[in-house]
Parts: sequence; C-alpha cells; structure tokens
Amino acid sequence: MKNTYFTPGPAELYPTFYQHLQQAMDEQIGSISHRSKQFQNIYRFADEQLRTLLNIPDTHGIFFTGSASEVWERVLLNCVEYESFHLVNGSFSQKFYEYAGALHKHAHILEKPFGEGFDAADIEVPAYAELVCLTHNETSSGVQMRPTEMHKLKRKYPKKLFCVDIVSSAPYPDLDFSLIDSAFFSVQKAFGMPAGLGVWIANETCLVKAEHLQKNDSLSIGAHNTLPMLWKHYKTFETPATPNVLYIYLLGKIAEDFNRIGIDTIRKQTEEKARMLYKFLENSADYEPFVKQERYRSQTVIVAKTGLSDRIKSSDDAIAAAKKANMIIGSGYGKFKDSQLRIANFPAVSIEQVGALIEQLQK
Amino acid sequence: MKNTYFTPGPAELYPTFYQHLQQAMDEQIGSISHRSKQFQNIYRFADEQLRTLLNIPDTHGIFFTGSASEVWERVLLNCVEYESFHLVNGSFSQKFYEYAGALHKHAHILEKPFGEGFDAADIEVPAYAELVCLTHNETSSGVQMRPTEMHKLKRKYPKKLFCVDIVSSAPYPDLDFSLIDSAFFSVQKAFGMPAGLGVWIANETCLVKAEHLQKNDSLSIGAHNTLPMLWKHYKTFETPATPNVLYIYLLGKIAEDFNRIGIDTIRKQTEEKARMLYKFLENSADYEPFVKQERYRSQTVIVAKTGLSDRIKSSDDAIAAAKKANMIIGSGYGKFKDSQLRIANFPAVSIEQVGALIEQLQK
Repeated sequence: MKNTYFTPGPAELYPTFYQHLQQAMDEQIGSISHRSKQFQNIYRFADEQLRTLLNIPDTHGIFFTGSASEVWERVLLNCVEYESFHLVNGSFSQKFYEYAGALHKHAHILEKPFGEGFDAADIEVPAYAELVCLTHNETSSGVQMRPTEMHKLKRKYPKKLFCVDIVSSAPYPDLDFSLIDSAFFSVQKAFGMPAGLGVWIANETCLVKAEHLQKNDSLSIGAHNTLPMLWKHYKTFETPATPNVLYIYLLGKIAEDFNRIGIDTIRKQTEEKARMLYKFLENSADYEPFVKQERYRSQTVIVAKTGLSDRIKSSDDAIAAAKKANMIIGSGYGKFKDSQLRIANFPAVSIEQVGALIEQLQK
Repeated sequence: MKNTYFTPGPAELYPTFYQHLQQAMDEQIGSISHRSKQFQNIYRFADEQLRTLLNIPDTHGIFFTGSASEVWERVLLNCVEYESFHLVNGSFSQKFYEYAGALHKHAHILEKPFGEGFDAADIEVPAYAELVCLTHNETSSGVQMRPTEMHKLKRKYPKKLFCVDIVSSAPYPDLDFSLIDSAFFSVQKAFGMPAGLGVWIANETCLVKAEHLQKNDSLSIGAHNTLPMLWKHYKTFETPATPNVLYIYLLGKIAEDFNRIGIDTIRKQTEEKARMLYKFLENSADYEPFVKQERYRSQTVIVAKTGLSDRIKSSDDAIAAAKKANMIIGSGYGKFKDSQLRIANFPAVSIEQVGALIEQLQK
C-alpha cells in the first residue's frame, strides 16, 4: 500500500504528477535540446502559469536553479555589495544568514527564539543594509511572517531590496510583487514534485544592482547562474546552462492545474486544513501547537509538541502511530527532533486525507 | 512514432530508464526525506556503482550538484587561491576558463583552434598555476584529449591539482584517479538520463586545499555546495541541501546496468560505433570528419562537416533527412551551427541504431 506523505518536503507528490510525467515520457521531454523551440515553449508556459498563479508582474523575471538553497547564495552574491539584513527565527533563516557570512558580506541579524515570529513594528532595518532577507515560512519551526507585515516593512524602507524565502509555502503567500523585489522556492514542497529544481523570481532593480556589482573589480557576483546571465537568456526563454528540462515541464503543468482550481480556492483549502489541524492539536491531550500566537502559525507546516501524555511520549510514538495507517509525518527539526512533529499541509493532500490523519492520531 | 536522439545532450534516454523510473514511482522515491536511512542507502548505492564503473579509489568522494556547469564554479572556488590554467579548444573549455575570470582568478590559457587537440608534449603549465583544467571531450568540436596524455602531464607536474571535465564522455574515459584529483560530469549525456544533476568527484587533496582557502579572510570559497560542506555530509551519505533524490536513485540504477554489461564492453562498443561513424564520414561524398587527426577524434561526440555536395548543402539538409526516419542529430555548435553536424555516440544507442542512422544519411 502506498504511503501518504505529510512531510514538509520532499512531500506527497501532487495527484496529477504521474499523468504529467507519463505525458512527458511519451513526448520524450527528457531528450529534447534546451536550445530548441520546444524547450523555449516549455519555459514560456511555466513562466506564464507561475506568473498567473503568483500574480507576478512584468518587472520580474522567473529563473531556474538547482535548488532554493542555491538561490540564498545567488541573491546575496548578486544583490549585496557590503551589507545584508536577516530576520532569523529558525534553522533555515539561520542558514540564509550564514551564507551571507560565508560570502564575506557584513550580515546584520535580528533574532527571535524558535517558535516566535516577526511583525513590521518589531523591526528596524540597519541604515546600510542593501538587502532585507525575510522568510515567509520557517520550515523548521512552523512560524510564518504575514505578507502584510512584509509589505508594511518595505513601505517603511522603500529603497532597500526585499527578498522573501517562500520555499515551503509558495503558492500560498499573497506577496505584492510591486513591493517584493525577489522571492524563491523549491518544487518539492507545496508544488508536489520531486526535489531538484529551484525557482528564483527577481525584478529589474535586482538586475541593475547585479550589473552594477559586476563592474566592481573588488568583488565577484559568481560565475554560474549570475542574474545578468540568467536574465540575458531569459529574454528568449533559455537558460545559460542545461537546466532540468523535465521538471520545468512538470512545474508548468502543475501550476496550470493550480490555476484551473484557482489560487483563491487553493489558499482557502490550505487555511481550512490548517484550521482542522490546529483545532485538533489544541483540543488534544497528547499534543499542542508549538507556535503559541495564532498570527505566527504557519498555514503550510504545522508543528506540534509531543510528550504531554504517557500515550505519546515522543515524536517517535506519533510517527509510528501514523505509519501504521501508511501516513508519514515529519519529526521536529534539529534539537526538536524527538519532541516535535511537523505536519505538512500542501495542496497534494486533501481535506479528507487531513481528516484521516487527525483520526489516526486520535486513536 | 518515437524519435531516436543522437544529440550530444540532452540525449536518448538509456533503454532501462523507463523501468527504473516506474520502480521509483512505485517506491515513492519522489517523496522520501533526504534525511532518511532510505536516502542514505540510495546515495551509498549510487556511490558504490559509480566507484566500480569509473574505478574511483577511496581517496575521492562523489558529490551531487545541480549541473556540471555548477562544478566549473565550485572547483575553481574551492581549489584555486590565485591562479588556474586552462586548455581551451572549443566553447565549453572556453566557458570553464571564463568562469575563472568571473571569479577573479588569474586564469592562464593555452588555446588551440576549434577541431584541434592537445598532447602532453605541447603543454607547459605556468609555475604558479594551482589547478590544471582539462576537458576530456570538447562537446562543441568533437575533440578528445587522451587520458594517457593527461596522466603524462600530471606526472610532469605532480604538485598541481588536475581537474578533468568528462561531461560528455563519462564513463568512457579510463582516468587514473591516482593521478587525477577531480572530475565531473552531467547525467544527460552518456548516462542517458534527463538533465538536472551534476556529479563531482574530488579527492582529499582538493578538500585540504578548500579547507585551507576557507581560513583565508580575503577570499570566499562560496556558500552553497562548498567542498568542505559536501564532504562533511558525504561521510554519512547525506547532502547539505535537498538534492535531486530521484535522479540520484536513477543514476545508481543505470550505473548498475552499466556494471552488469561491464565497462570494458561499454568502451569497446563505444569505439566500434565511433569507428562505423568515422568510416562512413570518410567514405562519404556528402560529409567528412571535422577533426582531422585520428587521435583527437572524440569517441562520444562525432562532428561532421557538411556542404561538400549539392545534395547536403548544410547541416539543416542532413538533420531533415535523418528526421524523416525519426532520428534526431545535432547541429554544429555556435558559428558552426549551419556547416557541421554533431552525432552523439552514447551507450543508449545500439550498434544497430548507429547502422540505421548511417544508412539513412546515405540515402
């Protein structure tokens, strides 16, 4: 019997994934040239579908990398001369910050404990920070930062570049790309695909900055997947090097499926399933939501505390209980591995499947 | 009717690819955690199979990146403090060289015209070059550098690090990894997979160098996929970020298939098919081999000149003739697009298929 993956990525594949994969194999997409008209059409299609889904204006390009983690590096190399600023409240926002250090940028940090979130009012952006690095959904702790707070912050600091990690939430967050300069995600989360493709959205202001930095002899914006090189090829829907053609094809198809359902419906379904999960955790004797304040609670990665009862002493007990019914849930991240659970709430799992998981955890 | 792709990558998928993909879907490999025991076993298996196939000793680790082009950047960042040295005789070795410039390394170049090759006797490695960058198979021009020449050169300069681009030839070249410090390839060429995974082989000497450079405050070895970080995770068959789990699984399976056939047989079959193609080109009134000297002729990407007869005035005529029989061959690269053909000779195409292509081109 097949498992249902409620893990926060890699995750359950989107139900239509298999038919799109079969179609791709029938069309021999794995063999076509990335310099062919056929590939340009695949890129254009994915671009159009993502643009519609995420409401991305013409000011922004959409580029492909090997992973979202690669984009941490690319955006720092291409958009920061000296200083970046990072909101850190978990392991992934921490890694984004550490990448800046590894690239010898002067990285400012505003830190909150694991499980706590940020509002615009909390934040003072350092005067010389060029790039503000935000994480919409901290996959490690299940904390979200609301887009309205991000937009408020950008309005306060309109001259700063804003980059948002939407790795484990896109297409859920309703970002206003007239304010957000760059964002990025990977396909193995809410898009329900296998891992191996990063998507980087960046606007012309980022490009201008990268072109400016490229002229500076005392620093390098890197050699591979630089923004000027990606953008140059993007104009004809090409990529500088051979990309993951098959996954770009599949991403376009799944984004099209999402558009057929409609982004509003997908967002409402996400919120409905999140409500079911949080309600269950709040009323359970075995679990409780790790994130206390409702406005910080992630809608796509729900984190639960275990160890409240003798029945469920650790995350292992809950994982084993779910596994009996072929449901795979994630452990906590890092030092919370044994004490927390992470339950992904992506479009690939239905309201019925979430209901079945809750029932199983109640047993 | 399905096409047979004789293109130099993306290329024809290896015949067993489809069954491995089906198996992977049945096992839900697209959903498993990259922090699971199951993934560690997949990485270990791919590592073992590649190690056997390419005769890689324990001194070398095997790592995964988004593409082979990414490795150009990674090896330069991690193994060069000031100076690299590049043999350039086509567009891809040129790009490797240009990456060094973009990273502000002092890049030395020894250049030969498109279509010509290198022998050890031609080459004097500059005194301060730290990394010697060789290209086994120049995909753009169909020129190979024989491994024996590479080994001879390394013996002359034993203190230099040697890195070999085997992108469009692996597993064909019989590299002696007691001499070659690093090599890399991508899976969409001779391994008959879709594009989206790079493989980087590097030894402990490269690691020591990277660790040394990492301590230097005046330069950065990058933040993503650095060699020390890749190696640290490699010890437990993990990766720093979420990798392309599915493709690593498939690569292991195809490498296993190659090992069942035996690398000697694969090399002999490659040479036999190359012989057939070159013989045809030499005896044809319509074509001739672009690479004049036999020892420089690539065994995996055969480049032909067109325009010798009224029948085949340009590469387009030949491509159209082959297309009629559902055979896809590649055009020349860059400025040779219209005047040359590139015919890939990878394990995915059989002696019979190469025979059928020759017959079709003769018609």
